[in-house]
Amino acid sequence: MPDSDRIQYCNHCGEQVLLQTPPGDNRNRHVCARCGRIQYQNPKVVCGCLPVWQERILLCRRAIEPRKGLWTLPAGFLENDETIQHGAARETMEEACAEIVKQTLYGIYSLPQINQVYIMFRAELTGENNFSPGAETLEARLFQESEIPWQELAFRVIRLTLQRYLSERKSGAFTVAINNIL
Amino acid sequence: MPDSDRIQYCNHCGEQVLLQTPPGDNRNRHVCARCGRIQYQNPKVVCGCLPVWQERILLCRRAIEPRKGLWTLPAGFLENDETIQHGAARETMEEACAEIVKQTLYGIYSLPQINQVYIMFRAELTGENNFSPGAETLEARLFQESEIPWQELAFRVIRLTLQRYLSERKSGAFTVAINNIL
Repeated sequence: MPDSDRIQYCNHCGEQVLLQTPPGDNRNRHVCARCGRIQYQNPKVVCGCLPVWQERILLCRRAIEPRKGLWTLPAGFLENDETIQHGAARETMEEACAEIVKQTLYGIYSLPQINQVYIMFRAELTGENNFSPGAETLEARLFQESEIPWQELAFRVIRLTLQRYLSERKSGAFTVAINNIL
Repeated sequence: MPDSDRIQYCNHCGEQVLLQTPPGDNRNRHVCARCGRIQYQNPKVVCGCLPVWQERILLCRRAIEPRKGLWTLPAGFLENDETIQHGAARETMEEACAEIVKQTLYGIYSLPQINQVYIMFRAELTGENNFSPGAETLEARLFQESEIPWQELAFRVIRLTLQRYLSERKSGAFTVAINNIL
């Protein structure tokens, strides 16, 4: 159920909201029938890393829904009060107990159907064994290219990021991509 | 007043919320005392353009708060259901009635103190006169480098984007920046 289906009440005064287009606006918003505050809804930023140790890539097997049991790169919602770089490093620590260095912007993906913007970084682990599964992770493991579980990846944005990384690594030139997943 | 100060009630059921750390989480959230739903708050994405016509840059003088009367690049909150590129082009149309071409990712800025992430593009106008002030703009104008109103710019992120653009234009090589404004 999308978040928008849940907005029934004003979170400032508790009165019911009405779906209407405010003056000067061009979109329907949830507007409080009493205090008039608008309950805006906007896309969320998901930030994450593609952490490597030499030629191997760190993936995490998800312990939580959605896509429990499938493999992903460490990533999660950016929190208030933090930078994107910090958010991506924090998620890598939370999901894979891994510190990262050489964090470099790698790709931005719009996912308008689920109102998310992914911002992904390349990064390096600090050691071959410097990671372990976090609370939301069943298993964390380094994968050679030939070992990547393509059929068991959790999200399309993760597959695209991995495919591009492996392709660009061969070419020797990494770019910053901006793509849409529609 | 930050948004967080406004969250008093659950927007699903209208009951009061409590500030507490949910199980498995490590941050205080607003949790509904009745239905248990968490009212998450996350940073918002602001997307915008640096539109040029030949060597001149398009700026807009703001007709609305904050920073009414000061100059800015066209930018605004990314909406649900749209890509970042579309959001930046839409804001340029809304604020400057300008169509853009050759839209290219140019910079990502974290503003953690106000919970925003700016994603800025370079772009070209379709003609020397193909723009005009939109409803939220007092005046739209093309500026030569020597004419830019540095003392009357609305936001620091705009100043930094303009400074970098002018510097990189001289060097002939544009990059994609990731920066924090703390």
